[in-house]
Amino acid sequence: MQHDEFGLIRLLTGDRQQADGMRSQGVVVGIGDDAAVTALSPGMQLVASCDTMTEGIHFLPVTMRDEDIGFKAMASNISDMAAMGAKARYALVALSLPKDADTEQIRRIYAGLYECADLFGVAVIGGDTTSTRGGIVLTVTILGEVPAGRALLRSGAKPGDAVFVTGPLGGSAAGLSYLLHRGTDAALWGELPAETAELVRAHTRPLPQAAAGELLQRTGLCRALNDISDGLASEAAEIAEASGVGLLIAEEKLPLAEGLRACAEKLAADPLEWVLYGGEDYQLLGTAAEADLAALREAFSGEGLPLHVIGRVTAAGEGVRLQRPDGTVQPLPKRGYNHFAAK
Amino acid sequence: MQHDEFGLIRLLTGDRQQADGMRSQGVVVGIGDDAAVTALSPGMQLVASCDTMTEGIHFLPVTMRDEDIGFKAMASNISDMAAMGAKARYALVALSLPKDADTEQIRRIYAGLYECADLFGVAVIGGDTTSTRGGIVLTVTILGEVPAGRALLRSGAKPGDAVFVTGPLGGSAAGLSYLLHRGTDAALWGELPAETAELVRAHTRPLPQAAAGELLQRTGLCRALNDISDGLASEAAEIAEASGVGLLIAEEKLPLAEGLRACAEKLAADPLEWVLYGGEDYQLLGTAAEADLAALREAFSGEGLPLHVIGRVTAAGEGVRLQRPDGTVQPLPKRGYNHFAAK
Repeated sequence: MQHDEFGLIRLLTGDRQQADGMRSQGVVVGIGDDAAVTALSPGMQLVASCDTMTEGIHFLPVTMRDEDIGFKAMASNISDMAAMGAKARYALVALSLPKDADTEQIRRIYAGLYECADLFGVAVIGGDTTSTRGGIVLTVTILGEVPAGRALLRSGAKPGDAVFVTGPLGGSAAGLSYLLHRGTDAALWGELPAETAELVRAHTRPLPQAAAGELLQRTGLCRALNDISDGLASEAAEIAEASGVGLLIAEEKLPLAEGLRACAEKLAADPLEWVLYGGEDYQLLGTAAEADLAALREAFSGEGLPLHVIGRVTAAGEGVRLQRPDGTVQPLPKRGYNHFAAK
Repeated sequence: MQHDEFGLIRLLTGDRQQADGMRSQGVVVGIGDDAAVTALSPGMQLVASCDTMTEGIHFLPVTMRDEDIGFKAMASNISDMAAMGAKARYALVALSLPKDADTEQIRRIYAGLYECADLFGVAVIGGDTTSTRGGIVLTVTILGEVPAGRALLRSGAKPGDAVFVTGPLGGSAAGLSYLLHRGTDAALWGELPAETAELVRAHTRPLPQAAAGELLQRTGLCRALNDISDGLASEAAEIAEASGVGLLIAEEKLPLAEGLRACAEKLAADPLEWVLYGGEDYQLLGTAAEADLAALREAFSGEGLPLHVIGRVTAAGEGVRLQRPDGTVQPLPKRGYNHFAAK
């Protein structure tokens, strides 16, 4: 890389560090000093997390363009704020690149980061750009705020609660599967059919459920919440373990991403596998008391947001289970999804 | 890596996530949910930054043990808080490791991270551990707090100010130089002579000047402040540029790390080169009005902290200059230090 630290900052941040724009987002000192200084709103608690995306593990050149890498790294972090019922406000970006990376590639990654940050009102207040042996490593740290005592945890689910998700599932895994097949199958290249394009977009440009997360916090009706980064089965297990309950999911109530069945048929894949284990859908999975469900549905429909009830909370000993369409019930084991494993 | 996410968290954090200990540090929700929740003290602003250390760039197997890598990554971030006059409170750790890394190595890196965090009262509230092609990439994001409006920036230096540093310089570069020579010279292995051990320690286990940074903020007498991560010449240039001033540094007033001259002689190196361009000393470089200097000295001596006046602030057009012992004055160019360049 040919730029010094400040040349690089100017290249990446352009006119974004101007005082007026940053001040309107509560930024007192932006990028360019030893650290950034910001003000939280009165009565708010600070919510913080970080997520790393690494080349070869979370993405491959055939699955994600540079802009997508930036966009998705920001999106997955904003999703963690939504999963706490918090509003994402600030981000810090640590980008490590191979020594032969050019500044144009850095600019593209940052363009994607900023595109997502702008969509959700997040100000990038700090970062570090370094060289590394090996592939791209991108860590975003996200800072948000939530009214004191109102963060939505995984641990509040109670037997009898309804289990809900905020949108369609399986799309990201289907899109990834399509991209991986395309990587080795020239016949799949060319313009994407509309439905496939949506699935690919679910993988490369996922949209965190920021509005739904904040709404769940405001209503006070959500007892446990997670975002679906590792797959429905895994996230359900986390709620079950943290809350000391079981979860019974009804297969036929699961909202499938549009075009999922057609894509599965084309790729000879199992759409249910994508829905349960695919992950990276960044929808929210939560529970609420049955008695509050009508009010919750009304709040969601008032904001034009979908809400799908997919099951109910049961006693602890029962674990996480799946009710098949024929009525039989089977355990839903928590297991990981190896993104780049050969099918 | 054989552990799942939660197994790994348990391994790394041991009993550190227990509610009582975390709560005393203002942590409402620690590691284990989608994000951590913390409370800032009333009237405080949030200060945030991140720093990455990558294998092959910031360290080599011959220069740093795993525990040192963790310790130094935490230390360099706490130093950024000190450079803002802020108190470091929380950290998030993103660790990317080669696929063949074992959990014992991860544990050692975390042991170093925690050793430093504990020394300075920092709570680790979040993190992500991932695989990567290539070497270790370790990003720490540090969160601190400072009374509203009291952060110490680079931009407040005024002509006539005294320029000070908080402690000895050059030690880290000397220690690194010794370690690099030792890496290829069997005669240098074996028990380190005491003075060399201190220099090596300055490189592998630097101590951020947290107490001095907070004191400078409390006194209200510091006009501009930086930490010396990239070398005195470079940090002086940053203050000069941000403040629109020049700086004149007196060579004979520079406090040299103990044993620096002897080490330079042994390695046929120039100790002044280490002092001016070595970096990673993590001392603070600042300015204060001449009229406030007596009060500042008294405040420092009251806390048992050293303070060395090394020059004065001049007019903008004069840039950063060095006054040699013979009285001649020469420009002090800002240039990087290539840690692993052949001497």
